[in-house]
Amino acid sequence: MELHKRSSSYCSSAPENYLVDMMNEIKIFSPATVANVACGFDVLGFCLDNVGDNMVIRKTEKKGISITNIEGFDLPYETELNVAGVSALAMYEVLDVDFGFEIEIYKNIKPGSGIGSSAASAVGSVFGMNELIGRPFNTTQLTEFAIKGEALASKCEHADNLAPALFGGFTLVKSVSPLKILEIPTPNELYATIIHPQIEIKTSEARAILPSKVALSDAIAQWANVGSLVHGLHTNDYNLIKESLHDGIVEPYRCKLIPHFKEIKESALNVGALGVGISGSGPSIFSLNKGLETANKVKDAMQNVYKNTGIEFDIHVSKINTDGIKIIG
Amino acid sequence: MELHKRSSSYCSSAPENYLVDMMNEIKIFSPATVANVACGFDVLGFCLDNVGDNMVIRKTEKKGISITNIEGFDLPYETELNVAGVSALAMYEVLDVDFGFEIEIYKNIKPGSGIGSSAASAVGSVFGMNELIGRPFNTTQLTEFAIKGEALASKCEHADNLAPALFGGFTLVKSVSPLKILEIPTPNELYATIIHPQIEIKTSEARAILPSKVALSDAIAQWANVGSLVHGLHTNDYNLIKESLHDGIVEPYRCKLIPHFKEIKESALNVGALGVGISGSGPSIFSLNKGLETANKVKDAMQNVYKNTGIEFDIHVSKINTDGIKIIG
Repeated sequence: MELHKRSSSYCSSAPENYLVDMMNEIKIFSPATVANVACGFDVLGFCLDNVGDNMVIRKTEKKGISITNIEGFDLPYETELNVAGVSALAMYEVLDVDFGFEIEIYKNIKPGSGIGSSAASAVGSVFGMNELIGRPFNTTQLTEFAIKGEALASKCEHADNLAPALFGGFTLVKSVSPLKILEIPTPNELYATIIHPQIEIKTSEARAILPSKVALSDAIAQWANVGSLVHGLHTNDYNLIKESLHDGIVEPYRCKLIPHFKEIKESALNVGALGVGISGSGPSIFSLNKGLETANKVKDAMQNVYKNTGIEFDIHVSKINTDGIKIIG
Repeated sequence: MELHKRSSSYCSSAPENYLVDMMNEIKIFSPATVANVACGFDVLGFCLDNVGDNMVIRKTEKKGISITNIEGFDLPYETELNVAGVSALAMYEVLDVDFGFEIEIYKNIKPGSGIGSSAASAVGSVFGMNELIGRPFNTTQLTEFAIKGEALASKCEHADNLAPALFGGFTLVKSVSPLKILEIPTPNELYATIIHPQIEIKTSEARAILPSKVALSDAIAQWANVGSLVHGLHTNDYNLIKESLHDGIVEPYRCKLIPHFKEIKESALNVGALGVGISGSGPSIFSLNKGLETANKVKDAMQNVYKNTGIEFDIHVSKINTDGIKIIG
C-alpha cells in the first residue's frame, strides 16, 4: 500500500500540525450500512443516516492498541479478537509512532443484524486514528485496513459494508484486490426503511447456502440490473431504480432464512416501496423509497407483518447518508 | 404494443403531413454495431460511425412488403426469409394502410462478421418505413419490430445490436420482455478499432458453446465490471472504462473460435487500447481507445498480427456514432 505520508513525522511541531497534536481524543459516529442492494451482491452498498455506533479513539502514551470500554453488546476486549481492534492493528503496524491508541465502543448496531455491525466497528477505529494523526491515509487505504477487521467477523475479505460506511452514499466495490471503490451518486429523495427481526443468521452460514454456480441467464439479468441501477442513480430515475432492484441470484436461497420475508416484501411494495431486498446476509430486510412519506408508510406496513406474528423486531427509517462516518466530538 | 399514432390517418392531407405525404422514398445509412462490449454480454452495445449498409425504402401502390434489389452479398429476396423483410412485415402487420413498401439493400456489412449485419438490415427497413409514414412509432417500438427480423438470423430474440443501431452511442438492454433500453452517455474521445478476420462463425454455434451455468464468483466480477463501465461512461473516466473492459464469462469459450485472438488482444493493449473483446459472437474483435491516434496505432498493431499469418481481414477505425441510423437522401 502506498502511504500518503506528510513529509514531517506525525508528532512534528510544525505549525500545520499544531491542532492535530493538540487533539488526543475523538468521538465519532460510525454508521450502519446496507450491502448487496438487491441486484448488487458483493459489490453494492449504501450508508444509513441515523443508525450507527459511537466510538471514542484516544491517543495514549502506552504503545499498541487497547480496547478500554465496550457498551451495548458483549464483545471481546482482546484486541486481536475484536473487529475494531484487528483493523486498528492493521493500520498501527504500518505506522512508525511512539504512542498508542485506546478505543471505546458504544455499540448500537446489534452484531449479526445484517446492517454492517462489524463494518461499523472496523471502520470506526481506523477512521478515528487517522483523524488523530493528521489523515495520512486516504479513504480507500482506510478501507484496506478495515477489511482485516471485517474478515474476522465474516471469515472473508469483503468491503461492501465498509465502503459505504467510509465514503457515504452508494458505493460499488469494483474489486477487492486491488481495492477499487466507486462513489455512485445518490438521488436526493431516497429513503431506506429497514426492519430487523430478532433472529440470528451468521454471515458464514448465509454464504454457505449459496450455490457455487448460477444459471448464465440469471447472471445476465443480474448484470443488466446492476448496470441499470447505476444508470438510474446517475440520472435520478426513480422508476428505473425501482425496475432494477431485483435479485434473482441470492434472494431465492437466503429468503428462506428470514421468517415472513415474502409478506414483508409484498407489504412494502404494496404501499409504494421502490424495491425490497435482504440487507447484507440478513436477517434485516431493507426497502428503498422515494420520499420520507413513503418510507414511513413502508415502516407501518412492514411492522404490521411482524406484529401479527409475534416476532420481535427493530425498525428504522433513514435518509441515505451521503457523508458516511463522521466526527461528533 | 401501444401505438403512438397521430390522430389523423397516415395519408391525411393536413398541413403538418404535407412533407411526409410528398416523401415516397428515403435513403438511409444503417450502421454496424458492437454488442456485448466485453463485460456486458447480451446487454451492452455501441454504434459505429463509418461502417454500415445503405438502404432505400419506397412507398408503393401495391400493398405488402417486397425486396426489389440486394447488392453486396447474396441474401434472399423472399420477404419472409430476409431479415429486413421480416422486421418490415412485423411493422406492416400493425399498420392499417392501403399502400405497401419496397426495400433495396446495399449491403456493406458482411453477414456473420459479428458487427451487427443482420441488425443493420432489421432496423433499416422499419426505420425507413416509420420515416415515410410520419413517425408513428418511437425508437423502442422500432426495436420491437426489428427483434423479429434479428430472430430470423440469430435464432433468438435479442436487441443488443439493434438498440445501438437505432439509438446510437452506448446502450444497455435492461430487458427484452418488456423491452427496456437505456441510453448510456458516450465520452467524446472514444474510438473503436474493429478487425474482421474472414472466417465464419455462426451466432447459433457461438451460443451453443457457452455453458448454461457460470461460477458465482465470475458472475460477481462481471456485474461489478458492468456497473463500473456504466459509471465510467457517465463520468468520462477513461481509466475506469479500461479497468472495466474484461469478460471472464464468455471470452474464455469463444476466443477459441477466433484465430490468434490472444495475440490480437495483447498487441492492441500494448499500444494503448483501453480494452479488447469479441464483437458480438465474433469473429470480429473490437477495441475501445481514447483518441483517434491510439485507435490508429491499434489498427496497425492488430493488422500486423494477421498480415504475418496470411489470414484475410477487414479493419475499421470509427468514432462512436452517437446518432445511430440516419437519413442520407
